[in-house]
Formats: sequence, structure tokens, C-alpha cells
Amino acid sequence: MHLIDVQTGLLANNDAVAAENRAMLAQRGIYAVNVMSAPGAGKTSLLEKVLPLLAAKYRVAVIEGDIVGSADAERLQKLQLPVEQINTGGACHLDARMVHHAVHEVVHGPADVLVIENVGNLVCPAEFDLGEDDALMLLSVTEGHDKPKKYPLMFRRAGLLVVNKVDLLAMTDFSVEEAVQAARDVHPGLEVVRTSCRTGEGIADVAAWVEGRIAAKRGLGAPPARG
Amino acid sequence: MHLIDVQTGLLANNDAVAAENRAMLAQRGIYAVNVMSAPGAGKTSLLEKVLPLLAAKYRVAVIEGDIVGSADAERLQKLQLPVEQINTGGACHLDARMVHHAVHEVVHGPADVLVIENVGNLVCPAEFDLGEDDALMLLSVTEGHDKPKKYPLMFRRAGLLVVNKVDLLAMTDFSVEEAVQAARDVHPGLEVVRTSCRTGEGIADVAAWVEGRIAAKRGLGAPPARG
Repeated sequence: MHLIDVQTGLLANNDAVAAENRAMLAQRGIYAVNVMSAPGAGKTSLLEKVLPLLAAKYRVAVIEGDIVGSADAERLQKLQLPVEQINTGGACHLDARMVHHAVHEVVHGPADVLVIENVGNLVCPAEFDLGEDDALMLLSVTEGHDKPKKYPLMFRRAGLLVVNKVDLLAMTDFSVEEAVQAARDVHPGLEVVRTSCRTGEGIADVAAWVEGRIAAKRGLGAPPARG
Repeated sequence: MHLIDVQTGLLANNDAVAAENRAMLAQRGIYAVNVMSAPGAGKTSLLEKVLPLLAAKYRVAVIEGDIVGSADAERLQKLQLPVEQINTGGACHLDARMVHHAVHEVVHGPADVLVIENVGNLVCPAEFDLGEDDALMLLSVTEGHDKPKKYPLMFRRAGLLVVNKVDLLAMTDFSVEEAVQAARDVHPGLEVVRTSCRTGEGIADVAAWVEGRIAAKRGLGAPPARG
């Protein structure tokens, strides 16, 4: 019982800080997306392709979450975007408090869009709201189409499911149809895009989805001019 | 500070129960291995191939850990081995208490080897000793060779690193050499086997490694007759 009480307390505390983050972002009209997946599903590779498309229209800032190191942040800094690295120091997910200072930096700088790359983990990040508008999750086809049944919370939380590495489909037993069905069993109507960072398939569709969500948040049909 | 104290307390409590599990297994001379990886790295597929080789020489029991469901246990039950399913109910890893009852069952039944398949997660399971003799971890080549730098604790804990899905190597940028070097930077001397559950490469080597560890535990050069 002690464990459960502590966990409930931690989540309630997280939700309070997430609400602060969300209010700060809303006040500046910044759209935020939390990108999550298992380790190695291709979050950073996808962002390397999608962020330049978004950056052509919006001012994009990035928060990069890792247990240790800054390898992914260094990859994304090559895109000439502001990237804030957060090391969780062993923790298996970002939480609202960890990103709070970086959100402060973002709302006081020039930004329209905040992209947060979470720690690679299909379980724990799903429980922690960071204050984002949307969660985007990747499932790579090499992971198997049974994953929505085994990790339902993440698929329930996702606003968009990106089925990544589809260039490897022929080499695997993965059924996109079964994966999507299993995902929609736990999250009816979940939107899905198929992507390959190698062939470029679906990259523009992911960017378009994010742009649609930005427009919806602003209640506008078209994005503003950049600058 | 409260969080840290609670976490320290939880780990200390886990270690006490793990020590009980270890003593129970030792008393019956049962060797136990804890199999860990990211989601979709191929733990169940590897066990489907390796367990029949072990079962030809030893009495093998399995504990299967999943957040929800019993899909993997059902796959392994087809091998005609006793399989105990544990659902963690949301928790992102097995802990010593969760497996304690199942370990009781195993030590009171006929078994020489206990194989525990953990929840798919490269982070949290590494922190929780279950009372096993060895940790075996899988890294699939589609996850990228940077993973030892990003998830060092799991690679430090592993007794054997299985580099899985090597049939897909030509389709990826994965460098086995770089992955092994990065793994040995955090865990000098770590043993490595390359495997493919599709081609069968390395499967016998994994079984041989486990047999070697069983023999070492027993201080014997050869396994006992089965039965």
C-alpha cells in the first residue's frame, strides 16, 4: 500500500507541474509534442527528417531526454535548431519537473513548436504527462505487431502512431494490418502513418499531421509566416 | 529526497527478497537466468529456439513476465515446458517479490534450470535483482549500435550479450564491432554471441553458454542425465 500511495502522490505532483508547463506554453501559443517509443525504434532518425520540414514554416525548439549522454542532441543540433539536453540520471522517463526549466527557456525564446524526445521506453513515459499537446509514438516493424496488446497504455496515450522502418517489412513477419487493428482495439480511431527514414516514405505525412495539429490548436487554417 | 529514500528502500527490500529467492534455488541446485531486452528485440523467439536444446539435457521451467496478457507464455507452453505467467499490472519490470511465489513453485517441482523472461524494457529491469545466477540481454541490430552508451546499466549487468536479428545486418547501419566495443567500454570482457532466430545462427552458442554456466555453478564438467 505504501508503494501505491507514493506512486499516486508522484503522479499527482507530476500532473500539477505538467499543468503549469501546459499553461506556460498555451500563453505563448507554442504547440508541444512528446515523442515516445521503445529504444531503437527510430525517434531521432525520424526527427532528423521531419524537423527540417517543420522548421521551414515554424520556429522549432527541441528538448532531448536521455538517461546519460548527449549523442541524440548532438545529432539534432546539426539541424541548426535550439536543443536542450536533459539527462534523467537513471530515471526511465522524463517527467514534468525535469522539463520544467527547459520549457521556461523555450517560452522565453523564439519558438512556435516544441518537440520533446523522451527516453526510449514503451512503458514508463506513457504515465507521465509533460504538458504537451500531443503524444506521437513510433513502433518499428522489427518489434512485432503484438506490441499494442503488450504495452496498451502507450498506444492509448498516442495521438499519432508512426509505424516506422517499413522498408524492412519484407524481411519480417510484421503485419501492418494486425498492428493497426491491435492498436485500434485499445485506442479506437487512432491515426496511423507508415514511415521509412531510409526511403522517405511517410515523412511528409508526419510533418503534415503535426502542422494540422498546430493549426487546430490555433484555430487557423494556415500556419503563420516564419520569423 | 523523499523520492530517493523511497527508491533506496524499495531496492533494499527487493534485494532482501532476491537473496531469499537465490538461497531457495541454490538449495535445490537450480540454475536461474534472467532474460532482458527492449520490447521486440526477440526474447520469446530466442527462447523458442534455445529452450528445446536445453530441455534435451535439463528439466527447464519458465517464468514469463508481462505487463498484461499471456501471449508469450502461450508461445512457450507449446514447448511442453511448465510456464508461470506473471502480469506486473502496469509495472515496467519484474521484481524479486513478484517472482517469489513462482520460485517457490519451481523449487518444489522438478527443475534444473529456471528461465525468467522479463518485461521488455532496457532500463528498469536492470535495477531489480530477482535472485538469478546470470542476466542475459538481447540487443537487436535494428535498435542501433549506440545503445550501450545510452543504457549502460543493462549492459553492465549482463553476463551475456546476444546481438540478435543479424540476418537484418545488411539492411541496417548497425556495426557489430562498434556495438561490442561500446558494450565492453561499460562492461570490460563482456561475452557476446551473434544470433538470428530466422537462420539459426548462434542459437547453439547461446545454449552452450547457458550449459557452461550451469556446469560452472555445479562445479561439474558435464551436465547430469535428465529426469
